[in-house]
Amino acid sequence: MSSRLSTPSDYAQLLDKYDTWMFDCDGVLWQGDKLIDGAVEVLQLLRERNKKILFVTNNATKSRKSYKTKFDHLGVEAHVDEIFGSAYATAVYISSVLKLPKEKKVYVIGMAGLEEELSDEGIAYIGGTDPIDKTLEPFSLENFELDTNVVAVVCGLDTTINYTKLSKAFQYLTRNPGCQFIVTNEDSTYPSAHGLLPGAGAISAPLRYALGKDPISIGKPAKTMLDCIQAKAHYDPTRTIMVGDRLNTDILFGQAGGISTLLVLTGITSEEDITGPNASAIVPDFVTSSIGDFRSTEK
Amino acid sequence: MSSRLSTPSDYAQLLDKYDTWMFDCDGVLWQGDKLIDGAVEVLQLLRERNKKILFVTNNATKSRKSYKTKFDHLGVEAHVDEIFGSAYATAVYISSVLKLPKEKKVYVIGMAGLEEELSDEGIAYIGGTDPIDKTLEPFSLENFELDTNVVAVVCGLDTTINYTKLSKAFQYLTRNPGCQFIVTNEDSTYPSAHGLLPGAGAISAPLRYALGKDPISIGKPAKTMLDCIQAKAHYDPTRTIMVGDRLNTDILFGQAGGISTLLVLTGITSEEDITGPNASAIVPDFVTSSIGDFRSTEK
Repeated sequence: MSSRLSTPSDYAQLLDKYDTWMFDCDGVLWQGDKLIDGAVEVLQLLRERNKKILFVTNNATKSRKSYKTKFDHLGVEAHVDEIFGSAYATAVYISSVLKLPKEKKVYVIGMAGLEEELSDEGIAYIGGTDPIDKTLEPFSLENFELDTNVVAVVCGLDTTINYTKLSKAFQYLTRNPGCQFIVTNEDSTYPSAHGLLPGAGAISAPLRYALGKDPISIGKPAKTMLDCIQAKAHYDPTRTIMVGDRLNTDILFGQAGGISTLLVLTGITSEEDITGPNASAIVPDFVTSSIGDFRSTEK
Repeated sequence: MSSRLSTPSDYAQLLDKYDTWMFDCDGVLWQGDKLIDGAVEVLQLLRERNKKILFVTNNATKSRKSYKTKFDHLGVEAHVDEIFGSAYATAVYISSVLKLPKEKKVYVIGMAGLEEELSDEGIAYIGGTDPIDKTLEPFSLENFELDTNVVAVVCGLDTTINYTKLSKAFQYLTRNPGCQFIVTNEDSTYPSAHGLLPGAGAISAPLRYALGKDPISIGKPAKTMLDCIQAKAHYDPTRTIMVGDRLNTDILFGQAGGISTLLVLTGITSEEDITGPNASAIVPDFVTSSIGDFRSTEK
């Protein structure tokens, strides 16, 4: 059962208990382009108490650098090395776990942010935003030359997804022996400013279906993301808490990594999802209505 | 256990036993653009014996009329009312089972052949080959007007699949109450002239994933296709046989419909797939190496 935070001392105890605070962003710190009331003050409060702050997002369309501009725009203090996106974690996984030899490369289904993170980790790639693949013209294998140096297909949210990209990725995955199938994250939907659209998991679904096999997934709730954070930011799991609005990504992610979890109700999860007869089986350690509630420790 | 046909009397007995012969086409009558040796003679032999011949294909990119040109081109006698494609069966399902009121319509992800069959059944549709949806430009819900008359999304193989089409279909399926999700067929791959490419099942996979639910599937192995054939062509299941090269579509289809099944080894299924320790659990009634084997009854 979750502990429901309510009194100033509840919040004060949590502040004492955890040194590292990991935050999901959309639905926790902001909703679309609107800041959650009190989020800036609470982050400031954590900084004043010398807490380590990490921002953990599944958004793979942006690099950390471009994601930081979103923080800047909303007036939220953030530093690039505090931001862990699934594009970055994917690049780190490829460079540090797969350890590609220099002449090897990946085929990308994804956007500029993913390419930027791959480049920063020194990973060679083809596909992605290459105009050659941005086409709705018929694709024929007759004119396709298989690049035998492609040893992985990396797939994230790509709003220019098309049959040529899917067909090329399918060739690499079925014809290049041992070619890895990696997805940045498996979110079924993407919260655009005006409503839900198909997410990164939907973009990789055709390949998953055609291959009849599941990919290696990097973003929340996969532990790969946490391994990446641990390698770069070092934290003590017993004194770390993940704050999120999604049970099946944020909270599951924290639980899989053996860290504490705090659910806020300013995003996708409602009171009904966690109480009553149809409550989710995923139970966070703590629940509060909003991150802004931590301001009560200041009163 | 399957009966392996080999002697002239084996083939003669099968010819006596069945009045209606259903054929899958690719891998049975032809391979890509190459006729299977003896296929034309055997079809002719069946016609001489007054057998009912039906061609049952999951190809939903072509209407029956356009599929007939493939037969003509290869010199195989066929009549439009003998051809049952999944596009046609989908249109018949919508008109005779869903029974759309005149003002209602479907949103199509698919190609001209599917549109042609829908039109022939008097079904109004939007999407499909409409140039407005053939785009790789960013899609925003801000400029999207939901057509509340859309009561079904129909998805087949579409080589111009893109994020706009997927996003629109997703809106109809999540925002129009009771909107049906129908797929022409679930083939994971498509046998192009130069190799396998993602199939119709892969094209609908993003919606299936984003929705977290399975669609109504029309083509083989679904019984919906057989219901459509029964309504139009009337056959006696006890005297009907399905001839195919794929265990998980053709043979499963025949078995689900309570008709006999004959596997040929000129397509995707090899001897290894049906014998030995890793043999499929789907066991056809009869096996022969090629449809051409039936010529032996003539000798």
